[in-house]
Amino acid sequence: MKYIGIDLGGSHIACGVVDEDGEILAKAETSTLVGRPFENIVYDMGRCALTAVEKSGVPMDEISTVGIGIPGIANNATGDVIFCTNLFWTDEPLRRELQKQINKPVWIENDATVAGFAENAIGISKGCKSSVFITLGTGVGTGIIIDGKPWVGFHGVASEIGHTTMVIDGEPCTCGKDGCLERYCSATALIRMGKEMCMAHPDCDVMQRIDGNLELLNAKIIIDSAKDGDSHSLMLFNRYTKYLALACNTIISFLDPEMIVLGGGVSHAGDFLLKSITEKLPHYLMFKTMPYATIKLATLGNEAGIIGSALLARDMLTK
Amino acid sequence: MKYIGIDLGGSHIACGVVDEDGEILAKAETSTLVGRPFENIVYDMGRCALTAVEKSGVPMDEISTVGIGIPGIANNATGDVIFCTNLFWTDEPLRRELQKQINKPVWIENDATVAGFAENAIGISKGCKSSVFITLGTGVGTGIIIDGKPWVGFHGVASEIGHTTMVIDGEPCTCGKDGCLERYCSATALIRMGKEMCMAHPDCDVMQRIDGNLELLNAKIIIDSAKDGDSHSLMLFNRYTKYLALACNTIISFLDPEMIVLGGGVSHAGDFLLKSITEKLPHYLMFKTMPYATIKLATLGNEAGIIGSALLARDMLTK
Repeated sequence: MKYIGIDLGGSHIACGVVDEDGEILAKAETSTLVGRPFENIVYDMGRCALTAVEKSGVPMDEISTVGIGIPGIANNATGDVIFCTNLFWTDEPLRRELQKQINKPVWIENDATVAGFAENAIGISKGCKSSVFITLGTGVGTGIIIDGKPWVGFHGVASEIGHTTMVIDGEPCTCGKDGCLERYCSATALIRMGKEMCMAHPDCDVMQRIDGNLELLNAKIIIDSAKDGDSHSLMLFNRYTKYLALACNTIISFLDPEMIVLGGGVSHAGDFLLKSITEKLPHYLMFKTMPYATIKLATLGNEAGIIGSALLARDMLTK
Repeated sequence: MKYIGIDLGGSHIACGVVDEDGEILAKAETSTLVGRPFENIVYDMGRCALTAVEKSGVPMDEISTVGIGIPGIANNATGDVIFCTNLFWTDEPLRRELQKQINKPVWIENDATVAGFAENAIGISKGCKSSVFITLGTGVGTGIIIDGKPWVGFHGVASEIGHTTMVIDGEPCTCGKDGCLERYCSATALIRMGKEMCMAHPDCDVMQRIDGNLELLNAKIIIDSAKDGDSHSLMLFNRYTKYLALACNTIISFLDPEMIVLGGGVSHAGDFLLKSITEKLPHYLMFKTMPYATIKLATLGNEAGIIGSALLARDMLTK
């Protein structure tokens, strides 16, 4: 059998047909265009998935299940999305609406959870007894995988480390609270810190790279400047990776997984990022000789969402 | 069969003989006298356990296993204590040494974990699919119980939320780091804040209750003053329970258990404590309508260590 995986993001919808090994046979993509009616977005999800099926040449009879990774929280008992802040969705009947186009069993899961599941199924943490995936993007998502299964909690709201408090009464968060971890560990946080640096040091290397136009600033520019050895950027990057080391220590102290996997945009900084975090981490551990999780970079990149949602739906609905 | 449970603390060693239902048939207690050679402390643990057995009238043939709750981390593959900061133990062969006196299978586990296990087995969280126990005492210990089993992590160092960072570069911790959660959520933390209050307001209610002698200050005096409505003490208590609400949110956001159980000395403040935390908690949740863990007070008190270590050893060694 084959499996549809849908990665629903704030800007794009990516769909794929995946085989038993997690191989993507065909893909299709479309814009999310947030702000449109719920039904229209779901219609485009279905159309995009059917396009991927058509491209793959797999007959619909051979498609077993549909998995959806969402930037939010779902209830698989009802098939409803409970909360999806970036899409402005609350209590939307996603499964029912999608099944109007594709009448297959549907499993809906948080996008970081499905990406973590994909890494644990066929990626860097394959074979790990337990792993925690953190995605460092617009926000910070987390996927906890224990014994090959996502840990979603008793009420389905687990693995949201991005909304634990990192700085009490700190930076305001999009969720309405202050000082959330994702205000310090996301790509967005790195950009905010970069803007502050540029305003404090208008002659800095980053400011030159963006021709003085703060609108052009992104995480890669700051990281490239730090990689090239600019002292301001390095100091900033080290402040950022201190927050990441603290986040890793929270995961280790609380859950002690076999592996922590870093994904999302910032993880493309590669070994430069990894080295900066792993150098700082021992300082934050409870005692110096304690054994702790290996920290690794994700390997499946953007395809983790499609692969993870497809394979998770298979596991949850057919096993 | 019957089971020995040993609760090894920084000041006392408490031992008991426990039946299948978690009922304590007989108890014995002795001082730990920290600073003595490892062998002497373990000898007294054995002697104390044998005294409890003698008191119970249970023949040694009917004793199946020995469980030990320690204020630290153990490796049950070797039977060694890896790290036990309050007792100054590192890599000590606790099982081997104890078996010189009591030649039965021995299971060693963190004290907060065994207390959480006891609450989950026969106490307030009995029947919960998942629970997190936090003990608010000299430090802050945590016990994560999932599907009736302690979650000790891949390397055996999990459930140490007390040493996640609550305030970056904050109060120095006994573990050598700064700003650990237990510096803000323990009884010790409440006393530290109380001392600061007394020094800032020498005419405050608490200062009167201790006749100006800061050495007499303890958590109960501060809580009693807050219960009686003193404005300084109430403000302090609310600051303390804000930290506890943040800690609960970390547990909820990360693990989302069915129940969070508060134990340890501070939990004797009862409903006054519970109300103060549960009033604040919704403010720290990711979204306002989300379902989340029930927060409850522990019910087994000081006996949780004996009961939990005895029943856990039984489960781990005989099932």
